[in-house]
Amino acid sequence: MWTLFHSPGSCAMASFIALEEAGAPYRVQRVNFAASEQHAPAYRAINPKGRVPTLATERGILTETPAILGFIAESCPAAGLLPVGDPWAVAQAQSFNAYLCATVHVNHAHGRRAARWTDDTAAQAALAAYVPTTMAAAFALIEAGMLQGPWVLGERFSVCDPYLFTIASWLEGDGVPLASLPRVAAHFARMQERPSVQKALAFTG
Amino acid sequence: MWTLFHSPGSCAMASFIALEEAGAPYRVQRVNFAASEQHAPAYRAINPKGRVPTLATERGILTETPAILGFIAESCPAAGLLPVGDPWAVAQAQSFNAYLCATVHVNHAHGRRAARWTDDTAAQAALAAYVPTTMAAAFALIEAGMLQGPWVLGERFSVCDPYLFTIASWLEGDGVPLASLPRVAAHFARMQERPSVQKALAFTG
Repeated sequence: MWTLFHSPGSCAMASFIALEEAGAPYRVQRVNFAASEQHAPAYRAINPKGRVPTLATERGILTETPAILGFIAESCPAAGLLPVGDPWAVAQAQSFNAYLCATVHVNHAHGRRAARWTDDTAAQAALAAYVPTTMAAAFALIEAGMLQGPWVLGERFSVCDPYLFTIASWLEGDGVPLASLPRVAAHFARMQERPSVQKALAFTG
Repeated sequence: MWTLFHSPGSCAMASFIALEEAGAPYRVQRVNFAASEQHAPAYRAINPKGRVPTLATERGILTETPAILGFIAESCPAAGLLPVGDPWAVAQAQSFNAYLCATVHVNHAHGRRAARWTDDTAAQAALAAYVPTTMAAAFALIEAGMLQGPWVLGERFSVCDPYLFTIASWLEGDGVPLASLPRVAAHFARMQERPSVQKALAFTG
């Protein structure tokens, strides 16, 4: 039985949905960000980075969304969540997920998490004000060429889809109308129809 | 024959070293950042993100360092650059690389590339001033628990090693003395002894 440490509204939702799609045995445990539990010694002992998601398994602790998504897919091959056996196709999936984690999520984090990169409050405000610009630019690239449709990798649903859905759910709050991105919006609506997503949303709010 | 598009001093060095370690047939092509070639239409047609590295293959274009490193390792299994066949071990390698790309490289980029996240020049200066703090914090975690030694994954050399070496090569410029991190420094010295690293350094400067 794996345990997913998560926080509502965080990128951990991608792993939640992937676990559900994979049919993996898992439970979820909330890390209370409002109480700064992610920085408390008990959680730091599990994940020294003080972030979510963390996946606790019988072999140890795994962190970072792209790695957790890859592990879920490879551990539950019957669900077909990655094109395992085709290094090129797997690499394309990893490339998409790396873009989400290293560029798009980072852009988003400059809103409420600007203190990660500066302790100057005026600079933090400047970073937050620029988030709509960087999120719109990143999603313009996704809309134009990275989302093949109907799913990220084309006809095949994969772990890229929960990750895109999760980050797209932040767009309106980041000042980018979802309706301005027709292909991303269609993908978002398609995801909302899946029982895995409905379960994750009901659980994490 | 693959083509690696790179720029000297960039994170593309990790892929360069990995290609050399893998014994893959490749050539390198420099993208002249001083002439803003990465934003020119010719390069944007290859990589719309306007970044390096890009790996051009017989099957198409691949971007994002973690994905390129994974593809090189999986395509050249004889070199043993990833513990293929053990999803848990591969996920640990991907987790390490995801931390480098989404946290450590991002911290570094707030120095010379702060304009990615704000057009406010005072805020850009504040971000640059804070780089030593974030780089020291990220490398403290690596030093304390993420670098098993002698290589990142322990006894086994992997694609994580060229990536760590590449980012560690930025530390002094980011205001973090390499000597303050004994395990990272020993890894750095170990890497410098490898012919693959010497070739990459000689080529990219």
